[in-house]
Amino acid sequence: MSAVLLVKAATAGPDDVDALKLLAAEGLGVDDVIAVAAKTEGNGCVNDFSRTLGARAWHDVLPAAAVTVMSGGTEGVLSPHATLVVRAPWRTGLRGASASTPPIPKAVLGRRPQVDAVARTVGEAVADAGLRPQDVHLVLVKCPLLTSEDVAACRAAGTEPVTTDTYESMARSRSAAALGVALALGERTGEEVDAALAAGGWDAWSGVASCSSGAEIADCQVLVLGSDPAGGPLRMAHTVLHDAIDAGAVLSLLAELGAGPAGEGAEVVHAFAKAEAAPDGLVRGRRHTMLTDSDLHSTRHARAAVGGLLAGLVGDPCLYVSGGAENQGPPGGGPLALVVRASS
Amino acid sequence: MSAVLLVKAATAGPDDVDALKLLAAEGLGVDDVIAVAAKTEGNGCVNDFSRTLGARAWHDVLPAAAVTVMSGGTEGVLSPHATLVVRAPWRTGLRGASASTPPIPKAVLGRRPQVDAVARTVGEAVADAGLRPQDVHLVLVKCPLLTSEDVAACRAAGTEPVTTDTYESMARSRSAAALGVALALGERTGEEVDAALAAGGWDAWSGVASCSSGAEIADCQVLVLGSDPAGGPLRMAHTVLHDAIDAGAVLSLLAELGAGPAGEGAEVVHAFAKAEAAPDGLVRGRRHTMLTDSDLHSTRHARAAVGGLLAGLVGDPCLYVSGGAENQGPPGGGPLALVVRASS
Amino acid sequence: MSAVLLVKAATAGPDDVDALKLLAAEGLGVDDVIAVAAKTEGNGCVNDFSRTLGARAWHDVLPAAAVTVMSGGTEGVLSPHATLVVRAPWRTGLRGASASTPPIPKAVLGRRPQVDAVARTVGEAVADAGLRPQDVHLVLVKCPLLTSEDVAACRAAGTEPVTTDTYESMARSRSAAALGVALALGERTGEEVDAALAAGGWDAWSGVASCSSGAEIADCQVLVLGSDPAGGPLRMAHTVLHDAIDAGAVLSLLAELGAGPAGEGAEVVHAFAKAEAAPDGLVRGRRHTMLTDSDLHSTRHARAAVGGLLAGLVGDPCLYVSGGAENQGPPGGGPLALVVRASS
Amino acid sequence: MSAVLLVKAATAGPDDVDALKLLAAEGLGVDDVIAVAAKTEGNGCVNDFSRTLGARAWHDVLPAAAVTVMSGGTEGVLSPHATLVVRAPWRTGLRGASASTPPIPKAVLGRRPQVDAVARTVGEAVADAGLRPQDVHLVLVKCPLLTSEDVAACRAAGTEPVTTDTYESMARSRSAAALGVALALGERTGEEVDAALAAGGWDAWSGVASCSSGAEIADCQVLVLGSDPAGGPLRMAHTVLHDAIDAGAVLSLLAELGAGPAGEGAEVVHAFAKAEAAPDGLVRGRRHTMLTDSDLHSTRHARAAVGGLLAGLVGDPCLYVSGGAENQGPPGGGPLALVVRASS
Repeated sequence: MSAVLLVKAATAGPDDVDALKLLAAEGLGVDDVIAVAAKTEGNGCVNDFSRTLGARAWHDVLPAAAVTVMSGGTEGVLSPHATLVVRAPWRTGLRGASASTPPIPKAVLGRRPQVDAVARTVGEAVADAGLRPQDVHLVLVKCPLLTSEDVAACRAAGTEPVTTDTYESMARSRSAAALGVALALGERTGEEVDAALAAGGWDAWSGVASCSSGAEIADCQVLVLGSDPAGGPLRMAHTVLHDAIDAGAVLSLLAELGAGPAGEGAEVVHAFAKAEAAPDGLVRGRRHTMLTDSDLHSTRHARAAVGGLLAGLVGDPCLYVSGGAENQGPPGGGPLALVVRASS
Repeated sequence: MSAVLLVKAATAGPDDVDALKLLAAEGLGVDDVIAVAAKTEGNGCVNDFSRTLGARAWHDVLPAAAVTVMSGGTEGVLSPHATLVVRAPWRTGLRGASASTPPIPKAVLGRRPQVDAVARTVGEAVADAGLRPQDVHLVLVKCPLLTSEDVAACRAAGTEPVTTDTYESMARSRSAAALGVALALGERTGEEVDAALAAGGWDAWSGVASCSSGAEIADCQVLVLGSDPAGGPLRMAHTVLHDAIDAGAVLSLLAELGAGPAGEGAEVVHAFAKAEAAPDGLVRGRRHTMLTDSDLHSTRHARAAVGGLLAGLVGDPCLYVSGGAENQGPPGGGPLALVVRASS
Repeated sequence: MSAVLLVKAATAGPDDVDALKLLAAEGLGVDDVIAVAAKTEGNGCVNDFSRTLGARAWHDVLPAAAVTVMSGGTEGVLSPHATLVVRAPWRTGLRGASASTPPIPKAVLGRRPQVDAVARTVGEAVADAGLRPQDVHLVLVKCPLLTSEDVAACRAAGTEPVTTDTYESMARSRSAAALGVALALGERTGEEVDAALAAGGWDAWSGVASCSSGAEIADCQVLVLGSDPAGGPLRMAHTVLHDAIDAGAVLSLLAELGAGPAGEGAEVVHAFAKAEAAPDGLVRGRRHTMLTDSDLHSTRHARAAVGGLLAGLVGDPCLYVSGGAENQGPPGGGPLALVVRASS
Repeated sequence: MSAVLLVKAATAGPDDVDALKLLAAEGLGVDDVIAVAAKTEGNGCVNDFSRTLGARAWHDVLPAAAVTVMSGGTEGVLSPHATLVVRAPWRTGLRGASASTPPIPKAVLGRRPQVDAVARTVGEAVADAGLRPQDVHLVLVKCPLLTSEDVAACRAAGTEPVTTDTYESMARSRSAAALGVALALGERTGEEVDAALAAGGWDAWSGVASCSSGAEIADCQVLVLGSDPAGGPLRMAHTVLHDAIDAGAVLSLLAELGAGPAGEGAEVVHAFAKAEAAPDGLVRGRRHTMLTDSDLHSTRHARAAVGGLLAGLVGDPCLYVSGGAENQGPPGGGPLALVVRASS
């Protein structure tokens, strides 16, 4: 059995590991932690050292096997926090597991071998968690990127990397990781994956993948969460937002879980969402300016906007909203997973 | 009678005045335009030249007396657009009027004389529109700021300006304008205004003021909008958001006007809102990072977040969300006005 | 004869055209102006509306045939200013002419037809100015870019544009324009141009081209400046900076013109330079961070740094330093042209 | 005797401590390190986590008493690097010492008690280094700032902090630290310090102080460097730049040390400079835009510009250029210290 609990705590900075202090009250210890997923207050882009700082701080205190998913960017109302995923020896309603791929060679970043490495690791984690594919609601993947040095090293070794733009490499890595999730869960076939990689578009997507990339890691780290069919006090479900303002999908998912838009009903424990600027430059047919703003990257825009919508409907700014939803939900939208505590 | 119509059009750039082409279909002409309120795609801060460009383009085509309120900043999903306020010779359900103060001497910017100048002009516009104070739902004010040159000129003339920080001067000007609106409509007394100016806090607020500042003007330009007690196809109402994620207030106002969160019921024609980073650094008790982000000004964060929430609930990204809500609604929140077209 | 004078004036904003007032003292009039080259205080990137505003203001007052080169970005010590290039009926020491290509179809932007259009127009301007190729010291080109709408329109018409990244399109347009200059002046052959376009690298460069791109124009506008072999009070020369800190090249060029690093000797009237982040990520073997800074585009970094060096050595912050030196001088460096007034 | 050596190494990231590997070749060990002064690749402003990350990495490997001065911001050509200050048992030509104040209570940050704490600690370090005041060429001080939480805590405790603006608090802390240096070295009297604090201006300055502030520390950490009157292979001297483009002062200081602008003569080992936007908005009478750029903080502009000038004249981008020169050199300028290795 792989029952897990979510322990969420606001953080005072990227290196704040005080969430650990909450474990004792649950009768749990640091050795029970299988993952930490945190929002840190950097820009979420190439030069976001808040992620590196957070990863270092958590590595210093967590078991070696624990996965650390640091997602930079708390734009707008989003609030920095850390969520521990902790094994619990009782039925919680949630099941989960974490795992890591071997280091991804820089030459294959964004390419089929990265997809396959992620797919294998996701498959192992799903099995380890004792989850059926249909009960999986979230697969968080933290994946590497290309730095200027990586690009130079690839070329020196005679390989052209998938892109020479360091920022673009973050997108390509997220894309490959998302396709790996889709492949592992049967959402997409290998042929569809190859076609998606060749076309470069985002039409082949996973409905549960949430991938973020950062300079602080060399492998892909995976966290799988899903519902225990046997039930329990926590309930989880997911949907996809079809665009960045899909309030209808949020309200439906809340209703499905017995929670209301103004805090009534079941208490929302956490929300995990992806956000991105629609690649066609439009939201509901209206021009957005996220892709032509040279002062502010589009992922920062998108997190702020989707974070505002979700925080309003959920009533809590401590949400995991991550930018860059390539192949994660439909273009311009993204997956959304909610966890609630059933009212007693 | 001062019935007005709102003619809203997406814009291809700050200098796009094609909204004028929509007037003919309504049987109206450019001479009927009393104001234009536009969102332009700049940063909404000191060096936002999209506002200057927009103002210049509109000045070239509108009647001299028309007020041009250019509000910079279409962060996140917000979409650049222009809204013409046009006198109509039939009952529309809305009444409105515009007016301008004399130029505000830089030495009194942010001080009581600016408050009084705005109050007088608002009073005149309310009377001109034939509105009772309780029927006023929105007072847009565009007001000047201090540049580095203004600061130097003040000091050369022997006066210490209200602030020497050009960005801060935008807030002080908005604050004085909002207090002028509150004074004109009886929301606050002169004593309360003096106390608010002395204290520097934002606790004395107007529930209908929406003020923005820009380098392109020297006077304060005022647009008043409200409900025609005799009714008509358009209906208007207002409320205040108590914080940046006050979905409950939005949903209540939509319900009051017969519109639903997913586009059902009455069609939402427009929304006018103010947004700001809560000055105590918290949203619902959670730390936000808008005030400590040295890469991105807090007004940009706040517009993106509130714009995301409103666009989701209203179903349209062409909304007027303006940053910097000092004395406009409660600290961290802001006024919200909606206009709907009653379903027939 | 095509003698020209440079009339440089600090500007109070992008729409400040007061430089015209200086013409009378020279006995010249607005009809004598063949071009204006200005530095405006925007970000110099895709969403720089200071350029659009400046272009609009100058178009309203200059002869229709005059070329307006608005270059955004006055980072660091660089100071906003406008330089009029004015035909003078006496020997000044400088010769110049301006001309424009037809509108560049968006489908060929960054491709050989843009190169050829620029080359033809440069050739005409050089002939018109009565310059020999070896006396040309500066060819300013203002060229268009691709917006999100342009990309969509290209694809709708069945053509894949040279890039779908709006920011990248600025570089591709500058690159094609620079190759056009090199082709016109015999610096490169047509075969070398084709090879450079195919390879995408910046090794085939012009030593006198200074190209900038902006959303406000659809054609390429060209200004050619060079030395009158017959001499005169103004003297001009050019060199290339081999990297962004090539103080040696600046000092040599100053010495060649009889000017010293601390303001002694001949008075420096103007400097025109290009700046860019070295594409290999290194300056003198040291890592720079301009290409991995997701908060600040590399062209802003580069203008600030090169502007600091030049302003120090020239003793004046009103310099024309433009970002993005693709195919303009060696990679990481760029052309530099100086104009001095010989001491009498 | 307190002879010290400077060991400078380029860094691959803020947490790169490989500079330590260079010690063995000098016959020195990690226990000999008294300080590290590094430039890290963050924004150098409030939310610069590259400093926190660097400080954490160095604390993990250096002796507890070693001072870590992490200065964020490598704009333009500036290159991330770390400089170890190491005690050497032979005559190097340099003397130095480091020391720290007790934690500075947040309520007195930017006020006289911070000045006095710094002055006492500087005095002790100067004595410890065996330096005469006239031989001191550089006093690096790293000092704390106010976060939003600090401001709230001060007010909760009944004290109004020196400012409520977190960014402004960085300037006030640097200012108090610089006045402490000036007081310790006899550059300013206590009365002048009080007057400077009361006036808030920057006219009372130190010619050797280089202060930077960061969220990662609570005390003020001091490093003093100066010339050994007995001489040695390293030579040090200092001057002040009177504005941000004072090439003349740089060239004079280079000449004084026997080094030339193009790398001839003595090898420049290191340069330490402060940079800031002139508070009057002018450089040599020309308007700069650093203080009205709402997208980019003025300290980032200033570091880029001054870094470009110095890197050009010194021939190396691995320079310590720190932003915010309040009371450190004349307004708009700043102190500059150079270390060269005499040619043999």
